[in-house]
Amino acid sequence: MHKSYLLLALLLPLMAGAQTVTIDRVNPTNWWVGMKNPNVQLLVHGPGAGTLTYSIAYPGVKLVKASTVDNPNYAFLDLTIAPTAKPGKVQLVGKKDGQTITEAWELRARDNTPKAQGVTPADFIYLAMPDRFANGDPTNDKFADLRDPNMDRANPFFRHGGDLAGAAQHLGYLKDLGVTAIWFTPLIENNQPLTNEGGSMRASYHGYGFTDQYNVDRRFGGNEAYKAFVQQAHQAGLRVVQDAVYNHVGSMHWILQDLPMKSWLHQWPTYTNTSYRYQPITDPYAAPSDRKITLDGWFVPFLPDLNQQNPYVANYLIENAIWSVENFGIDAWRIDTYMYNDQPFMNRCNAALLAEYPRLHIFGESMVNNVVDQAYYTRNNISFPFKSNQPGGIDFVLEYGMLDALKQPVSYDGGVQRFYQTLAQDAVYQDPTRLVTLLDNHDQNRFLSEVGDDLDKYKMGLTWLLTTRGIPSMYYGTEILMKNFKDPTDAEVRKDFPGGWPDDKENKFTAAGRSARENEAFDFVRKLATYRRGHQVLHTGKLMQYLPENGLYVYFRYDAINTVMVASNTSDKAAKLPTARFVERTGGFSKARNVLTGETLNDISTLALPAKTAVVLELLK
Amino acid sequence: MHKSYLLLALLLPLMAGAQTVTIDRVNPTNWWVGMKNPNVQLLVHGPGAGTLTYSIAYPGVKLVKASTVDNPNYAFLDLTIAPTAKPGKVQLVGKKDGQTITEAWELRARDNTPKAQGVTPADFIYLAMPDRFANGDPTNDKFADLRDPNMDRANPFFRHGGDLAGAAQHLGYLKDLGVTAIWFTPLIENNQPLTNEGGSMRASYHGYGFTDQYNVDRRFGGNEAYKAFVQQAHQAGLRVVQDAVYNHVGSMHWILQDLPMKSWLHQWPTYTNTSYRYQPITDPYAAPSDRKITLDGWFVPFLPDLNQQNPYVANYLIENAIWSVENFGIDAWRIDTYMYNDQPFMNRCNAALLAEYPRLHIFGESMVNNVVDQAYYTRNNISFPFKSNQPGGIDFVLEYGMLDALKQPVSYDGGVQRFYQTLAQDAVYQDPTRLVTLLDNHDQNRFLSEVGDDLDKYKMGLTWLLTTRGIPSMYYGTEILMKNFKDPTDAEVRKDFPGGWPDDKENKFTAAGRSARENEAFDFVRKLATYRRGHQVLHTGKLMQYLPENGLYVYFRYDAINTVMVASNTSDKAAKLPTARFVERTGGFSKARNVLTGETLNDISTLALPAKTAVVLELLK
Repeated sequence: MHKSYLLLALLLPLMAGAQTVTIDRVNPTNWWVGMKNPNVQLLVHGPGAGTLTYSIAYPGVKLVKASTVDNPNYAFLDLTIAPTAKPGKVQLVGKKDGQTITEAWELRARDNTPKAQGVTPADFIYLAMPDRFANGDPTNDKFADLRDPNMDRANPFFRHGGDLAGAAQHLGYLKDLGVTAIWFTPLIENNQPLTNEGGSMRASYHGYGFTDQYNVDRRFGGNEAYKAFVQQAHQAGLRVVQDAVYNHVGSMHWILQDLPMKSWLHQWPTYTNTSYRYQPITDPYAAPSDRKITLDGWFVPFLPDLNQQNPYVANYLIENAIWSVENFGIDAWRIDTYMYNDQPFMNRCNAALLAEYPRLHIFGESMVNNVVDQAYYTRNNISFPFKSNQPGGIDFVLEYGMLDALKQPVSYDGGVQRFYQTLAQDAVYQDPTRLVTLLDNHDQNRFLSEVGDDLDKYKMGLTWLLTTRGIPSMYYGTEILMKNFKDPTDAEVRKDFPGGWPDDKENKFTAAGRSARENEAFDFVRKLATYRRGHQVLHTGKLMQYLPENGLYVYFRYDAINTVMVASNTSDKAAKLPTARFVERTGGFSKARNVLTGETLNDISTLALPAKTAVVLELLK
Repeated sequence: MHKSYLLLALLLPLMAGAQTVTIDRVNPTNWWVGMKNPNVQLLVHGPGAGTLTYSIAYPGVKLVKASTVDNPNYAFLDLTIAPTAKPGKVQLVGKKDGQTITEAWELRARDNTPKAQGVTPADFIYLAMPDRFANGDPTNDKFADLRDPNMDRANPFFRHGGDLAGAAQHLGYLKDLGVTAIWFTPLIENNQPLTNEGGSMRASYHGYGFTDQYNVDRRFGGNEAYKAFVQQAHQAGLRVVQDAVYNHVGSMHWILQDLPMKSWLHQWPTYTNTSYRYQPITDPYAAPSDRKITLDGWFVPFLPDLNQQNPYVANYLIENAIWSVENFGIDAWRIDTYMYNDQPFMNRCNAALLAEYPRLHIFGESMVNNVVDQAYYTRNNISFPFKSNQPGGIDFVLEYGMLDALKQPVSYDGGVQRFYQTLAQDAVYQDPTRLVTLLDNHDQNRFLSEVGDDLDKYKMGLTWLLTTRGIPSMYYGTEILMKNFKDPTDAEVRKDFPGGWPDDKENKFTAAGRSARENEAFDFVRKLATYRRGHQVLHTGKLMQYLPENGLYVYFRYDAINTVMVASNTSDKAAKLPTARFVERTGGFSKARNVLTGETLNDISTLALPAKTAVVLELLK
């Protein structure tokens, strides 16, 4: 598919001279006065836009440099914006052969709404797929002028109509559940066709194939709905995480229809997929060719791979990131396929965001299965030749450890030892508390199915998620016992939230709509998340863990004032656990309150732990 | 058992006054002039030895300080030895109430024999148990005055009579095999009884329960035989590795019969075994009590645990280490149960050895199963709160990776991926080439049994061992296909080398004594080890590895002149491997010589790889 772009890019220079010069697009679509970095590079597109001679006459705005590239339909204008510049319409003036083109470009005042507040271990993130969560505005479900003009809830690959208006209607639900931050899979326009390539569906309801980074998809409500959603979320005390994709774009991204230059993308003589292997990046013995395939190979054939070593591409992506945070008021920044990006680019991008927004949290997805490789992509304590500046990351290694703890039988090195042993290697990270923890996500089997639909294991896993170190995240529907395996397709784990659509027969957003078992699960999550939200010791308290014995695992969160003890029995048999061994943390306490039952334990010298149960005890004097 | 020492230690001060003062022991038993460190601390023992006032009148030797401890039978004398001091007998003079005791202590000249030559990746270490390798002197098989006065080859727990004289007779065999260094399990006196504790045998033929660090066990030939052995080995071009034990001593160690002070050992209110768990040492969240159990808990009840934080204990061990290298001419220093030692002590001890012997290689045994914990015990690239200065280490993690590669079926992350992925994490080490690699040892199932008695897998594993990075070590008898599982006892994997005893019916030291299959194995090891010995590219050449695909794994060792390609097919099916993918390393070469068959390949564009086979190709222009 990418070959056709190349052909177009080669033909266009020949055609350009014959056309009337126009400007049809300037990115970023606007900027702001008063940013820390005074520089911005405008991408100007239109037939012959690269053949013009540009000038700007606007107080405080200086055109430092105008660059042209292979394709004459592009100009890249480097501006500096003085602190003294005033908001207003900046006229970009382009001249050629007596012809003058002007294009207005807006310089705005920064608003005072909250933005870039970060997410911290005080938060509890709820991950939702906007197309599958709730449909608040049936008028935006489909558009005849989009490449995929359909909507069909009966088909897992079609759009289902979920949108920001729907999510906004459920902010109260989320807040009640104890959630403090919401992370949507991408909202950015994915104007991709829905195709069937030899039985393999190429769908875009998931949002990972951007076609214009400056537009939120109309089917979610567009830019205005997003801005309104963030404001409503902030008013409700919730923070918003945006899902960023730098590695690739959708095959129908507007820029690919008229490629600025061949090196905009990673080009290969024949189609080359990434190996999905992370070892060649960190391996001191890796063959450069293996490294290149991992990094520059395409993620899938319909998601062309951006070449971030191209400085125009890098600027384009970095400025869009800043624009998004500033424009929408985003609090945290989740980065898709983090390990497949050019890492020096990632550092530049992270540094640019953090320079403007020091509290913004950034956490990328690097799906690796050992702590050394995971550490590589965050601020770490290992002297790798490359040093990442990423503040956070998604902690897949701990996820695998927790799942092993729930799925494997008790053994010398298996089962709960895997959870314990993963945390025991935290010395590799500069700040492991900034990693985002999880039990599943939209690319994995749902947690409940992973643990065999076992409510006891479900509760134990969620207890760990909400009490161990890190910033916990939960995938939508987990609280109402949504389950499934991703086989045969990812869509199996991305089903609609029952009650999110006006015509739904069931409404699991309400207690009345949930079964007794679902309410048991919901109430469990709600109780624990609410407790967590109100207790700083679970945010900033230290962690101390004890060697698991016979499947019994005990850890503490503690600070100068409070101590919370989490005692888990991962075995299939009820156990009595003497607590004398934990005197370093239990010393000075004689009683405890069971956070989940409210029960007071007047004697904590021995704990009765039913099989497959974790208890959370607030220790009392 | 340790309680009785305590009682003795408490009673002795009361008894001391009544005794005639004598000196029965001074350790180190001698020292040398011209050591880099001018200080040495003498432990002086004898009834009332701590009640004397000491003086020394010897040119260049100064008694800086005399210290007493709880038990009046000990004095610790800190001496400085000036560079100008001459070899000779230093008289230690002790006075009390008009009584004068003199004890001669020798200061020797250092000899010029080779010592501390190190082992490097140019070496191939052969690990043997001296009691089980060869019996060259039947007169030293047993001694009536030792606590275990028996010898019985039919019983796996009894002494079998192997000795240094026997090993010396087979230096030619080892040299012919391609071995360049020999490492014996400990030779130091283990004057321990052989007991049966409720069905559990407490044997000492293995040597890990020292009873006097200044004496090589008489059953191995004593100090003189060891000195002679090292000289013969050096003359044959072989290096010698000594197996050191700092963590514990045998319960009948002489010093435990008259404990200098309670804090000489790790004392517990009730017997406490180590947990054998390494996580509490590196875990940033570890409970101090868990850490203490790992470090200070006893290895087994009959091996009392030394408290290396006691400065007298530390000095005693460090000086014995230096004395051993200097006295016997040791080239490298293997340290038992490295992770159970006090790590600041280990750093002091390593630094003291390396200050005297900069080329000495030191490699400890820390049996862990992840690279983070393994890195902790060697010079590493991780900012742990504690920084190890150990130059080497035994690479158990890579061993497990290689065994998984041979034992697990081909899969996405299993099988040979485990070998590859372990090496891919080498960024954690400052110099992974200094790690000692292995396929088994005296504490593990024998390699051949681990790989299901499969000669193809055996050859593939040995090919990896002898061509990947590191200093390879091989357990005795591997070359003649000795096999077994350690269940039910370790003794199962410590059988006598057939032909090592005069009355053996078979002599597998000779080709005639070996079966055809054993000769096939022997010749294989010999050919590869000999090639390795002669080819620097396998010592100092860089490593480049490629992502395994379908169980096919290719790596290269290369330098400016030579390139060796190792291509392995770990699957059960023969494969054709196109080599175009490896052009970074194969470029410029058109042919190859198969190192094992001698065959020349005139076309290396595709390699035919039989199932379960690794080929070693010397690339040719």
